[in-house]
Amino acid sequence: MARVSQEHLDARRRQILDGAARCFARDGFHATSMQDILGEIGLSAGAVYRYFSGKEELISAIAEQTFSGVRAAFEEAARTTPPPTPDVLLGRVLRTFLDEEVPGGDRQAFARLIVQVWTETLRNERLAAVLHDGYNGMRRAWADVVDAYRDNGILDSDVPADHVARTMIATAMGFIAQQALIGDVRVEVLEDGLGALMSMQVSKIS
Amino acid sequence: MARVSQEHLDARRRQILDGAARCFARDGFHATSMQDILGEIGLSAGAVYRYFSGKEELISAIAEQTFSGVRAAFEEAARTTPPPTPDVLLGRVLRTFLDEEVPGGDRQAFARLIVQVWTETLRNERLAAVLHDGYNGMRRAWADVVDAYRDNGILDSDVPADHVARTMIATAMGFIAQQALIGDVRVEVLEDGLGALMSMQVSKIS
Repeated sequence: MARVSQEHLDARRRQILDGAARCFARDGFHATSMQDILGEIGLSAGAVYRYFSGKEELISAIAEQTFSGVRAAFEEAARTTPPPTPDVLLGRVLRTFLDEEVPGGDRQAFARLIVQVWTETLRNERLAAVLHDGYNGMRRAWADVVDAYRDNGILDSDVPADHVARTMIATAMGFIAQQALIGDVRVEVLEDGLGALMSMQVSKIS
Repeated sequence: MARVSQEHLDARRRQILDGAARCFARDGFHATSMQDILGEIGLSAGAVYRYFSGKEELISAIAEQTFSGVRAAFEEAARTTPPPTPDVLLGRVLRTFLDEEVPGGDRQAFARLIVQVWTETLRNERLAAVLHDGYNGMRRAWADVVDAYRDNGILDSDVPADHVARTMIATAMGFIAQQALIGDVRVEVLEDGLGALMSMQVSKIS
């Protein structure tokens, strides 16, 4: 067998994942067969099965790739002094879900795929484990950012960092759901909304 | 046929919806048959079909009932002077999704049902229409609350009220998704998280 470079292997892997993401997003996880995916990519079964054992492994790989991109964005933010505020940071994270760089290249389709995978995890323990690991990783990474806010004097409140982390993750998940179900989510909607919340004169109320 | 009171009709309707919600949440929308629902409720087919034509109408009714409860909470908040802050108001709304009063009586199961219905709307235009109407109603009701914040001097920012509304709805949707997929969502997580955001010293950064 001819030797192939790592670049070639990575590009091929990426090509398979993008094609699979397009199929899943268009037709749903259940209605997509491996034959559909092979047809979409234009590769032989042998070429694809060398990388992935089947649909479930493809979905897991797409999910892991997405989580690892998001974690990297958080880790970079926690190292920045002062760290970007939640509206800026969450805007950056949502771009990885809702901009043109998403797997498959169609943000509406990708958001729909994410919501379908959520439902699939309710019946599929292996996918649920991938989701739980990714969620817990994001939770820790966001909590580190919240600690950095406190270290930098931007946040005085002594609420648990984990609660702020879960709230930020909830906001991101909710915008993904809105993009999937309703569409028309632009990142400035979130930036405006969170920015307005952060500017509220809470002391005037209590 | 004996005449029955409106109270009796309402109670019977409620009994059917609660039983259907339990079945859907436990087994999923697709795997639940009308036979399963009849067995769960312990009523005859004739008694149930008098109220609902089938599964889809049951899901629509559960969704409409939930949306109308949420809208009522918003409308009440917009009439309060000053209106409750977003952390308080969103906490109140999430209780209707995540507390013991949810249809079927099991908050984890109800959250899972909501996520399943989201996925179902991707393929079902009638359910999608119910979701869109409910979403647009919530959006307008939240935007009225945001206007009330401005009228009461609590919010200075001139961002579109609709963007703040969509951000709040996203946060609520995301917590429902977390409850469905991960569990352990207590309303104080959201109250702490939003409260901390609202207290951030944003001016220290820019």
